[in-house]
Amino acid sequence: MPSNADLSEIVATIGRDMADHLGGGKVADYIPALARVDARRFGMAVITTDGEVAETGDAWIPFSIQSISKVFTLTMALERLGDDLWKRVGREPSGSRFNSIVQLEHEHGIPRNPFINAGAIVVTDALLAGRAPAAGIAEIRDYVRKLADVETIDIDTEVASSEAATGFRNQSLANFMRGFGNLNSPVDDVLKVYFNQCSLRITCRQLARAGLFLAGAGTDPISGDVVTTSKRARRIAAVMMTCGHYDASGEFAFHVGLPGKSGVGGGILAIVPGKASIAVWSPGLDEAGTSYVGAMALKRLAAATRWSVF
Amino acid sequence: MPSNADLSEIVATIGRDMADHLGGGKVADYIPALARVDARRFGMAVITTDGEVAETGDAWIPFSIQSISKVFTLTMALERLGDDLWKRVGREPSGSRFNSIVQLEHEHGIPRNPFINAGAIVVTDALLAGRAPAAGIAEIRDYVRKLADVETIDIDTEVASSEAATGFRNQSLANFMRGFGNLNSPVDDVLKVYFNQCSLRITCRQLARAGLFLAGAGTDPISGDVVTTSKRARRIAAVMMTCGHYDASGEFAFHVGLPGKSGVGGGILAIVPGKASIAVWSPGLDEAGTSYVGAMALKRLAAATRWSVF
Amino acid sequence: MPSNADLSEIVATIGRDMADHLGGGKVADYIPALARVDARRFGMAVITTDGEVAETGDAWIPFSIQSISKVFTLTMALERLGDDLWKRVGREPSGSRFNSIVQLEHEHGIPRNPFINAGAIVVTDALLAGRAPAAGIAEIRDYVRKLADVETIDIDTEVASSEAATGFRNQSLANFMRGFGNLNSPVDDVLKVYFNQCSLRITCRQLARAGLFLAGAGTDPISGDVVTTSKRARRIAAVMMTCGHYDASGEFAFHVGLPGKSGVGGGILAIVPGKASIAVWSPGLDEAGTSYVGAMALKRLAAATRWSVF
Amino acid sequence: MPSNADLSEIVATIGRDMADHLGGGKVADYIPALARVDARRFGMAVITTDGEVAETGDAWIPFSIQSISKVFTLTMALERLGDDLWKRVGREPSGSRFNSIVQLEHEHGIPRNPFINAGAIVVTDALLAGRAPAAGIAEIRDYVRKLADVETIDIDTEVASSEAATGFRNQSLANFMRGFGNLNSPVDDVLKVYFNQCSLRITCRQLARAGLFLAGAGTDPISGDVVTTSKRARRIAAVMMTCGHYDASGEFAFHVGLPGKSGVGGGILAIVPGKASIAVWSPGLDEAGTSYVGAMALKRLAAATRWSVF
Repeated sequence: MPSNADLSEIVATIGRDMADHLGGGKVADYIPALARVDARRFGMAVITTDGEVAETGDAWIPFSIQSISKVFTLTMALERLGDDLWKRVGREPSGSRFNSIVQLEHEHGIPRNPFINAGAIVVTDALLAGRAPAAGIAEIRDYVRKLADVETIDIDTEVASSEAATGFRNQSLANFMRGFGNLNSPVDDVLKVYFNQCSLRITCRQLARAGLFLAGAGTDPISGDVVTTSKRARRIAAVMMTCGHYDASGEFAFHVGLPGKSGVGGGILAIVPGKASIAVWSPGLDEAGTSYVGAMALKRLAAATRWSVF
Repeated sequence: MPSNADLSEIVATIGRDMADHLGGGKVADYIPALARVDARRFGMAVITTDGEVAETGDAWIPFSIQSISKVFTLTMALERLGDDLWKRVGREPSGSRFNSIVQLEHEHGIPRNPFINAGAIVVTDALLAGRAPAAGIAEIRDYVRKLADVETIDIDTEVASSEAATGFRNQSLANFMRGFGNLNSPVDDVLKVYFNQCSLRITCRQLARAGLFLAGAGTDPISGDVVTTSKRARRIAAVMMTCGHYDASGEFAFHVGLPGKSGVGGGILAIVPGKASIAVWSPGLDEAGTSYVGAMALKRLAAATRWSVF
Repeated sequence: MPSNADLSEIVATIGRDMADHLGGGKVADYIPALARVDARRFGMAVITTDGEVAETGDAWIPFSIQSISKVFTLTMALERLGDDLWKRVGREPSGSRFNSIVQLEHEHGIPRNPFINAGAIVVTDALLAGRAPAAGIAEIRDYVRKLADVETIDIDTEVASSEAATGFRNQSLANFMRGFGNLNSPVDDVLKVYFNQCSLRITCRQLARAGLFLAGAGTDPISGDVVTTSKRARRIAAVMMTCGHYDASGEFAFHVGLPGKSGVGGGILAIVPGKASIAVWSPGLDEAGTSYVGAMALKRLAAATRWSVF
Repeated sequence: MPSNADLSEIVATIGRDMADHLGGGKVADYIPALARVDARRFGMAVITTDGEVAETGDAWIPFSIQSISKVFTLTMALERLGDDLWKRVGREPSGSRFNSIVQLEHEHGIPRNPFINAGAIVVTDALLAGRAPAAGIAEIRDYVRKLADVETIDIDTEVASSEAATGFRNQSLANFMRGFGNLNSPVDDVLKVYFNQCSLRITCRQLARAGLFLAGAGTDPISGDVVTTSKRARRIAAVMMTCGHYDASGEFAFHVGLPGKSGVGGGILAIVPGKASIAVWSPGLDEAGTSYVGAMALKRLAAATRWSVF
């Protein structure tokens, strides 16, 4: 474990080193609000379980949380529904992107894990439980606010609307699962909540803070709040390790060695069990949809701190 | 980290507790030499990086190493060929068993990872490098002997012959890859080596000892031998975590939280980075082909020692 | 070619023989209006190109046309758009039902043929061409009315509503293709038309009459109307032969030897090029979704008349 | 039905017209003996059921029969084993090439039809029935000789050897099916026969003659020999229509409208039930592996003679 001074120095060095790589990767362009984000942004924030913070770059600029929200909805749903949730969604890596929908067919509408879109939609449906979308949206937003200890986190309604207008694949997946009886609320309601949860705007600082309970074995080490049990926190981290990056989860484990979850907004949340929570952001994505500079920064951080779990 | 006394007590308790479950699962029956193994066997051995040993049950009885051999051939091949090996085999989880061969087709003969059969066959081909099978077989056997620090580890030739006589699926995979140019030696030569490496007989004690370098960041903490670099050891462990148990890798990560590799002989090797190497054996398998009692024992051990990496 | 008297006798005999098999198969039960149809119904009507009619059983009772409507919308769309339609839909058999959606993914949203649901939805979208659903629905209904020379053919609105309420798989397919840009009108509009076209109620007599132009090389031999060119009529029949019965098209060709199209309402339209148009109806379906008694009757008719094209 | 004089004129005209297209397509180059065939060859022979012959171009030059041999082995196997053969092989189109092996996996080693390689290998295994390969090879060769009424048809042993040396995909398929228990003889024996049957050298004249029994409803109209029953001949033709051209069977039915079987040697056999047997040959293949000029010539012939069955 590096000292706080060393950690600050490591993070600062990474911030400087990344300057040569800014603009790498390709910004998500399927909706205008994401496409116009400056590709050269980079931010990183690290919070240790004893409350120390180290950050660099644009750690204070909000970005679109996208799929990272799935970590928080999974935690909520497990707390609310317990292990019954696992009857509706698996916890195995999905294999290639190509197979996503054939596996859904082969496995009768049960998605492989809660971090592929199909799985996250089921989790959101489980949370919504038949209520009106607005209630579900507010609940998720408030949950993330509380974890991040910031009241100002909000939804980018332009992003949410654009997601809805272009979300044909998610419509397809949701209807497919509905056909198998693995979706209870109306498809449009579930997707409304889902698109809104993905449209939360959050900064690296806030995101690292929101994920800190996973580094604290389920308990927020700053507030002392028990977010989830130790066992469940470890299990969520395990799913992040094996399934957190679509069809590049193996690569992330191989190079970074930490449980993590990426989003097409360019953010990545990574957990160092017992030690720290890390958030990085840089909008350019690699082919698998993970932040190119963000993953590079995490790789360096893991090497410098020896924080790989392996 | 439990004290040595505590560790011995934990292991002994698990040994006693497993008595109620002996015979669970289904012994592999595709070849006679495996089918006639006593389903009620159970052994476990733990070696810590400071050389302490705790064991229980049939830890001294040799069993068929099967797919666990893939960890050792992968290490050998990476040391010999360096990262070029990754041009011929990926490091992503494979998704469902069902898709194994279609993915091989979709990905033009490049197996998803070195722990599915197709990937391990490529690794063996890389090691063989055109030599006669006998040379390759001896080399792998000697490598495992050296890691385990036991000269008597040997190949069960009856198992090797039976594997060859019934290995139509592996013949199919190897020819398929050969058709894509991802196999250099003749199919029959490569498979001969492969079937022999899978037929090594090893005990829990020996297996835990052989895997200890992975807990020691690439260096055998007892002999001081540098088996591989720290970086490579971590990466091998990462691949074990995401891909070590076919289509149940997610389950193993979820329940045990340690990098591991299972074999249809009923053995499992698990690594606690920086702390210990663990081998369990019990012949009855669950549906995914992992030792039923073995996985249960590892789950208990991880819970009692808090050794999960998450 | 049997004489008219012989044909009447053959048809009557089949009608009597089928009595032993009534109730075989399983009535489609995914919507109530189909589920409550009497499983023991059976009707058959044959119209020759010289205008002779032979019929038996319930040939005068209307049933739900379902997928047989795809023959008529394909003809309409080819007449209106010409061969450009084939840029949006293929004409190859789809292989197993299991693969339908993975092939759609593999082939970037281009369905394999116009008789699987995805393909028929594309054809309907091509016909709708951005207009309001009501216009598209009326147009298709009027087209079938004209072909059948009966003004009273109409849509069963209960069936259409039920289809819409349970059509999650079709919603999924349509959104999937929309995501690939192979659907121009809003998904809900296209599906509204599609569900309505499938809900036309028609009798065997009417259906055989409506398909007669295909036996007449594109020209209705009774009215003399040129419905489509000779070349196109032959090609539509070819697609019926290779793709008319989902994943059982090979079986139908093997046993009956005529171009045909089945629907889950229990109807089948079969064409004897140059000679006759045949419609059968019996609600019980085999596993592939083809009328069990209907296919049996067609097999007998083809054997007795030597009308197989092979 | 054109008169004999008209038919000769039609065939001669096609011969002249094809001159502009010679060299189109791509000659199979996976083995040297096929790769060195002159791409500009073109031959066509038509034999009517009353024994008239019309031919043009290189109708007298032998070429490699390749997959067209599957029609003859299927007929042999059905005669010998009866409909029990269909327990080991289906009669449905296979869908896309991409899925061939996953469908074999999904359907537990039962190939979709006897004209894809996997299916033809099963048929050959059924014929071999445990005997030595030489016996099986001689038997198939003699069968084709008898059908073609020519004693000089023989196997190109260079082609057979090359096929064996490069046939990794067929090795893979055969071992895959053996693993499912759908192959009785040793894989190498079955493949030896299979590669030899594909290496028969035959001319258009001979091939058209050999297929004439299919135009004669199972009876050779010249010799009067009953090769198979009328029912079975129709069914073989039906399988040719739906499955004769791999993943382009729909295209062939659409454009030509005749049951046919193509081979990568550039030959195509097409049947006009009740009327004629046609063989064409031109070595350049389209993307689906069917003779480019050959298919074009058949399309013209079908249009000029109105021989399409539709």
